[in-house]
Amino acid sequence: MSRYWNDRVRGLVPYVPGEQPKDERDWIKLNTNENPYPPSPSALAAIRDALGDSLRLYPDPDGTPLREALAEYYDLSPEEVFVGNGSDEILAFAFMTFFDSARPVVFPDITYSFYPVYAAHFGIPFRTVELEEDFALSADKLIRAAEGGGGILFPNPNAPTGVGLPLTEVRKILDRADDQLVLIDEAYVDFGGETAAGLIRSYPNLLVVQTLSKSRSFAGLRVGFALGNADLIRGLERVKHSFNSYTLDRLALAGAVAAIRDEAHFAAARDKIIAARERTIAALRELGFIIPPSQANFFMAGHPQLNAREVQQALRDRGILVRHFAKPRIDGYLRITVGTDEQMDRLIACLRELLLHENRTGGRS
Amino acid sequence: MSRYWNDRVRGLVPYVPGEQPKDERDWIKLNTNENPYPPSPSALAAIRDALGDSLRLYPDPDGTPLREALAEYYDLSPEEVFVGNGSDEILAFAFMTFFDSARPVVFPDITYSFYPVYAAHFGIPFRTVELEEDFALSADKLIRAAEGGGGILFPNPNAPTGVGLPLTEVRKILDRADDQLVLIDEAYVDFGGETAAGLIRSYPNLLVVQTLSKSRSFAGLRVGFALGNADLIRGLERVKHSFNSYTLDRLALAGAVAAIRDEAHFAAARDKIIAARERTIAALRELGFIIPPSQANFFMAGHPQLNAREVQQALRDRGILVRHFAKPRIDGYLRITVGTDEQMDRLIACLRELLLHENRTGGRS
Repeated sequence: MSRYWNDRVRGLVPYVPGEQPKDERDWIKLNTNENPYPPSPSALAAIRDALGDSLRLYPDPDGTPLREALAEYYDLSPEEVFVGNGSDEILAFAFMTFFDSARPVVFPDITYSFYPVYAAHFGIPFRTVELEEDFALSADKLIRAAEGGGGILFPNPNAPTGVGLPLTEVRKILDRADDQLVLIDEAYVDFGGETAAGLIRSYPNLLVVQTLSKSRSFAGLRVGFALGNADLIRGLERVKHSFNSYTLDRLALAGAVAAIRDEAHFAAARDKIIAARERTIAALRELGFIIPPSQANFFMAGHPQLNAREVQQALRDRGILVRHFAKPRIDGYLRITVGTDEQMDRLIACLRELLLHENRTGGRS
Repeated sequence: MSRYWNDRVRGLVPYVPGEQPKDERDWIKLNTNENPYPPSPSALAAIRDALGDSLRLYPDPDGTPLREALAEYYDLSPEEVFVGNGSDEILAFAFMTFFDSARPVVFPDITYSFYPVYAAHFGIPFRTVELEEDFALSADKLIRAAEGGGGILFPNPNAPTGVGLPLTEVRKILDRADDQLVLIDEAYVDFGGETAAGLIRSYPNLLVVQTLSKSRSFAGLRVGFALGNADLIRGLERVKHSFNSYTLDRLALAGAVAAIRDEAHFAAARDKIIAARERTIAALRELGFIIPPSQANFFMAGHPQLNAREVQQALRDRGILVRHFAKPRIDGYLRITVGTDEQMDRLIACLRELLLHENRTGGRS
């Protein structure tokens, strides 16, 4: 603590990112929802082409070529697209643009753990809506909780549960909460969720946020984007140009444009991940694991006979990193990223072995 | 304007970045203080090495290797170094970490035009201190204005004037304002200014912010850093991890580490720029231009017989971009970035020609 910090910083409880191991061990890294497959070779080639003397010049502060590529992809205009340094930066900008201290925002009780951090940081009050017993998000409950509120925010599919909300329910929220911004965080939507991108022109209160970190294998490049009514996008631009005008560097812009255009590469990796997810979930359920249905590149798994925290450590001892959240309702589960087929085989084998051991030793915990 | 923006966003007057021309014309670009020489070849090679499948993985959220390289360079520890997505992002984080709405921050009346934008955006009141007639910053005036205030902020050398403040005066400010943070924005210090980096261990209230955009020719890569007491750095980290944990991508981190280590490349470009600046200022003064002494990679030039706005346009017609600020006291000047020797020759020739024409036509304005 320093005497030079302001009061808000003294009270902050910052976000804790998942571990990025720095040692040389060849970890099976299923803890931060990265894509196990490499980025598009044509995107890497585009970065290589942009890598040269022109790096002495500032990038385009508006990210125009990337906005054009995304507009084309989603059948929108570039004025309906905002780009930023990862979707986290865009979420932060959205908090600064659309929410205020007068009215609470609403999000699920179990959700991306950065939301309450943003709220505290920007001085925005919030209410949470309890997920159903099966971890589904109830649109009706959300709408009721948002009455008189200042905004709605949820991931679809949700994290860390992986559970998706059907578009019919999304529409219901947009219709009924038309007095406030509805921010849908679609970081994982490409793995089987239903995107609301097609609803942008119908709902002036809808902002959809996505990222290239997951389905485009570019977590290390830091590119996210938002889709929404041009008025909403202009608000984000005002905030960005009051914060940092050049958030995306020349290499990230070049790589992102090419990644968006390489549909075949994207689709192949996505399909492999979805297949591996379904196969893994089926195998683990056979072992007695309880796993909510996932539309993401991760799933949440708990076992009545196993202590999740201990399983996390046991997997770590075997070279597999997964994530555990010491939070009510989900502390009996692990969040496991879907990796390659080989990685999933190894995961299943390790969990089977742990269960066998548990059954043999009679379940001391 | 949108009904979904909050009140603060409605009132924002965002920063306006200098023009980045998108056409194919071969501009002489002296308008955004970029380095006319390319980045370090070894830095480009380091980026090439980092460019591959590992981009699917998140970067190190703490930027450890870059903090280590900067700590080594400045003879500090990595805990005394913060890294961010350009110095603008770090300035924004500093506003969020160290200043508050209760006490005004103080900065010069003529300075980097982003400061009042940050202040408005983050709800921080401010006072300005008038520069002297010769555009020098008076440490005594600054200290008096900061009494009872919540922070001091100035670029050294100042922008857009290029005028530097000697370290003896900087020390006076740090000694007398020890109850508040003193943020010195050294974006241009490598071109002949006196850095306060060596004072970090003596003053717990000193934060020095620098960038790789100018002296390291990496405006297109977006890397800035701050040096300060470990307590100050921890405050910036808390804010960053409440905003966006991964602000620097893997390629920027790799390139920045190698750029900091390539001292010879850095020094050669810097020396050429300083020599070109001195020669150009001397030539323009002979033509009657009034130019405050510059320690930066730009200078501010005005001429009693010429209208600065018209000269900017006339230069533009000749393929040369410079910047004009329509602000009291400096609207008679242009801010001109120091380019290559050839670019400076062309600039001098164009200005000489404009003056000749002005003298012949008898000075209509």
